[in-house]
Amino acid sequence: MKQSQLFTKTRKESPSDEVSKNAILLIRAGFINKERAGVYDYLPLGLRVIKKIENIIREEMNALGGQEILMSTLQRKELWEKHFKQDRWSDENVDVWFKTKLSDGSELGLGFTHEEPISNMLEQFVSSYQDLPFSVYQFQNKFRNELRAQSGIMRGREFLMKDLYSFYPDEESHKTFYNKAKSAYRKIFDRVGIGEITYTTLASGGSFSEFSHEFQTVCDAGEDTIYITDESKKEAQNKEIGAKDTKEVKAVEVGNIFTLGTKFSDPHLKFKDKEGKEGNVFMGSYGIGLGRLMGTVVEVLSDDKGIVWPQAIAPFRVHLLSLGEKGKGYADEVYKTLVDRGVEVLYDDRDLRAGEKFADADLIGIPTRVIVGDKSLESKMVEVKERIETESKNISLDALVSELKK
Amino acid sequence: MKQSQLFTKTRKESPSDEVSKNAILLIRAGFINKERAGVYDYLPLGLRVIKKIENIIREEMNALGGQEILMSTLQRKELWEKHFKQDRWSDENVDVWFKTKLSDGSELGLGFTHEEPISNMLEQFVSSYQDLPFSVYQFQNKFRNELRAQSGIMRGREFLMKDLYSFYPDEESHKTFYNKAKSAYRKIFDRVGIGEITYTTLASGGSFSEFSHEFQTVCDAGEDTIYITDESKKEAQNKEIGAKDTKEVKAVEVGNIFTLGTKFSDPHLKFKDKEGKEGNVFMGSYGIGLGRLMGTVVEVLSDDKGIVWPQAIAPFRVHLLSLGEKGKGYADEVYKTLVDRGVEVLYDDRDLRAGEKFADADLIGIPTRVIVGDKSLESKMVEVKERIETESKNISLDALVSELKK
Repeated sequence: MKQSQLFTKTRKESPSDEVSKNAILLIRAGFINKERAGVYDYLPLGLRVIKKIENIIREEMNALGGQEILMSTLQRKELWEKHFKQDRWSDENVDVWFKTKLSDGSELGLGFTHEEPISNMLEQFVSSYQDLPFSVYQFQNKFRNELRAQSGIMRGREFLMKDLYSFYPDEESHKTFYNKAKSAYRKIFDRVGIGEITYTTLASGGSFSEFSHEFQTVCDAGEDTIYITDESKKEAQNKEIGAKDTKEVKAVEVGNIFTLGTKFSDPHLKFKDKEGKEGNVFMGSYGIGLGRLMGTVVEVLSDDKGIVWPQAIAPFRVHLLSLGEKGKGYADEVYKTLVDRGVEVLYDDRDLRAGEKFADADLIGIPTRVIVGDKSLESKMVEVKERIETESKNISLDALVSELKK
Repeated sequence: MKQSQLFTKTRKESPSDEVSKNAILLIRAGFINKERAGVYDYLPLGLRVIKKIENIIREEMNALGGQEILMSTLQRKELWEKHFKQDRWSDENVDVWFKTKLSDGSELGLGFTHEEPISNMLEQFVSSYQDLPFSVYQFQNKFRNELRAQSGIMRGREFLMKDLYSFYPDEESHKTFYNKAKSAYRKIFDRVGIGEITYTTLASGGSFSEFSHEFQTVCDAGEDTIYITDESKKEAQNKEIGAKDTKEVKAVEVGNIFTLGTKFSDPHLKFKDKEGKEGNVFMGSYGIGLGRLMGTVVEVLSDDKGIVWPQAIAPFRVHLLSLGEKGKGYADEVYKTLVDRGVEVLYDDRDLRAGEKFADADLIGIPTRVIVGDKSLESKMVEVKERIETESKNISLDALVSELKK
């Protein structure tokens, strides 16, 4: 894409109403726009990152056998109030509801999670052990009426979430799936580039705490505290347990997986086993917030010049900069060549000084910067610099293409 | 996908609380689930159709140069109340708002359209004629508090919509883009399979009615009336204008494109022209409801046996049915071959009678049905029938693959 066509612009000054690093950098670089605290729009660069994260997660969910659906935001009061064994409609039990009304006065809620409607929807399809097991997932906007929302896109009042739900006949078969899901989660965090600093902790509380985990990424802006050791193999504790040699660090919960048991299936989502005996379906739920994951990457990988995107979720693979009048034609040619070879390129074809283009490229954080200057036309060499490195090198266009295709 | 793995099932009986054909068929075939009137979930088959429609629209919007974004659902009262020249917050002016509250008591709305927030978001990026023109679009959930919602997914209280907004310096340059958008819309309706019965009508009212159009698909369940002629070249009237030889038909509005002028840019979204003179940006808006389009296709193309999907938006290209015990192994082989060649296949590998499988295939409406029976193993021939035809033919697997790849 030509940067001259992109409607967003970077800005030098930080927004005055933001305190979190992720929001400040993402707003300055033109990835997001703030509607109000905890409510953000995704602009073209930001939406490209979200879509890449979404695709990585979708691939891993499909590999688990998950079937993609899309539930509604609007929620029926009756379903949350008394259909299953616990009342999650009451504001005393759940303090994050946004509620609204139909024109006839009946109340609706905006979904903050989807256990109730998913279990209820499945009642029509599940009656026998032969209908099990399966898992379903969605990418869906969640709404949570948070009292405070000062962490940028890491804690939204409206936020995109992947939630997967698994349905098994019993605890034993559930555990096999649960462990696969746990591995899939680790793979996701590896693929988006934060696997090395992401720890698995046992989730506290609940009836199945041994099979309930959080994924915590070490991050100064995190709201949680975890205890890690050097030989932890990415397992950590979420409370001090006297293990010696642990280090206390701040962390962000980037994902969680829970064994729910029959909490949301009892009494309505049931099946008959081989002997004709009736039981409730054994459930698990598995969540990742896409915005939170994107915000965490910005928090932990950025430097004082701007964002540093891992390749897998960068909005573009290459940031091509044309410098000077004479090099322009050759830069156009390089752009065309790269795009023709299937490389995603943001092409800074604007009529600006080199310093401004460099500063923008550092702020936006695309992995590889390619400069075509006045001398490139003659030498047919381009200057290549990785965002995370300080040294650049001059190579031919052919060499660049084959490096990018590796 | 193996049908034995799909968690949804078809049902013979119609849901008792639906009157619209699209909802009845889509619920019976397992494409959607009703939460309440006007609020539906998309199940795996339904979401596949929505995603295909979305991709077709995205391709056409990208071809227009549209830049994809994602705005928030939650809307600030102040922005709709008094930021631009008209008040669209008041329930007297707009009677479809769903409103909600933050925990501090301040009011928020759920977006039913996005002119106000998009214009407001752009104020930070537009200051000069050099920042224009451009267009932005999104696929986003809209919320409308409809008094009645009895048309299935054709009139939702919550529904997925593509809305594009264009920003040009003046009316003349806007018109050029407007005409391109009009062609793109025709292309979309052609591609999803309803181009032949979709008419362009002038939208009534408004200051720019000559450059405001609706796209109306002839459909008995439609809420609008249009007047068509045989030589109309797909142009129609939305009121009787004494043209002789017109025919009055019912129609569904599947899309609309509007010239907005400076209604949503005055006074805040402005730019300086070459001479330094200040003016308001000239705008257009262009909408398509994805659910409504899907529902319309079901209304107009289904027959008494079920849905008939056009190839471009069918959930799968091929419905493979294995019949009998002996053919099962060969059916598995056919499935593997087709999937390896990149064909999207729903494979009915269930242990059911032939009649039930045929009825399900007709109801679900996948374009090509392929039957592998007991004799197929020996003859290496499969029986192929198009959903819209009554005759089947026996061909080899190779011939099938090359026909599908055409």
